[in-house]
Amino acid sequence: MPEKTEKNLAYAFAAESKASTRNSTFAKKAEVEGYSQIARLFRAVSEAESVHARRYLLLMRGKIGSTEENLETAFQNEIKANVEGYPKLIKDASDEGNKGVFRAFSQSRDVENGHAELYKKAMNNMLADRATEYYVCQVCGYISEDEAPDNCPICGAVKGKFKLVIKVKGDVGSKTTSGP
Amino acid sequence: MPEKTEKNLAYAFAAESKASTRNSTFAKKAEVEGYSQIARLFRAVSEAESVHARRYLLLMRGKIGSTEENLETAFQNEIKANVEGYPKLIKDASDEGNKGVFRAFSQSRDVENGHAELYKKAMNNMLADRATEYYVCQVCGYISEDEAPDNCPICGAVKGKFKLVIKVKGDVGSKTTSGP
Repeated sequence: MPEKTEKNLAYAFAAESKASTRNSTFAKKAEVEGYSQIARLFRAVSEAESVHARRYLLLMRGKIGSTEENLETAFQNEIKANVEGYPKLIKDASDEGNKGVFRAFSQSRDVENGHAELYKKAMNNMLADRATEYYVCQVCGYISEDEAPDNCPICGAVKGKFKLVIKVKGDVGSKTTSGP
Repeated sequence: MPEKTEKNLAYAFAAESKASTRNSTFAKKAEVEGYSQIARLFRAVSEAESVHARRYLLLMRGKIGSTEENLETAFQNEIKANVEGYPKLIKDASDEGNKGVFRAFSQSRDVENGHAELYKKAMNNMLADRATEYYVCQVCGYISEDEAPDNCPICGAVKGKFKLVIKVKGDVGSKTTSGP
């Protein structure tokens, strides 16, 4: 693929991924402020920007492989975040004395470690006929299997902060939210 | 906020936003290949990475305002993507003769224009007691109000490619998908 186009796809993938997060954060804020219709619009745009970002990722060279390869990639990314990425960020936040950011980065590092373990398990049981459900802590991103714990083992959040992640079959009429 | 910490938050926000997209794309691929349990795990991790990205965005300075301010920001971002961002990307793809990327960027430009119009409408009716539902085209990100069209006016996708975006109240038991 020509150089500029490849670079532009990477740029647009990042920009649209960030736009999706930004709009889903605006949605949560609108919800808190009681603007539920506007929250709905922000969530829809967040979903649309995700569609753009996914489309670019699929057009980039070598980013999406077979599921077996993707599991390995995802596992390696979590390990890298846990061992290389976050420790550096945590150290800077500690050096600069920012406790809130230090806490957020430290919890994320631990959470990424848990994600790596879940991927490892999936790699070992690739063909197993399991149907595990996952609950995601909306404070720190910790993933709990099969049921939400009373308190998040990473950040202490209560059970009510966990959200079940499911796939509803079908397209029209299938349901999505990008905020809790 | 100290310089390094601020820069690190921006970096981590981008990295986690991209990781969320990557995992949701892996989920779609796993679904296609018939690995529904692994698809579920990828979706859960995608959701978790979104939680991280949102957390960093909220910790960054001046990124999230009141809903009125956020609407204005979101509107300006869409206009910028439509008028400045995409035209440059589209020209490069055209110069380099990549038709698939040209089509994707061109459709996104038109879609962002539609998003800007929806934000404009929301700004004009901020307090209106409406309850519009939104359907998002899973091919190009076009947003349709109240019902899915027979064919997407931007990319021609059939009705079945549209997904209703909803908010399910509550946390535990609330439902989310990050792929169609």
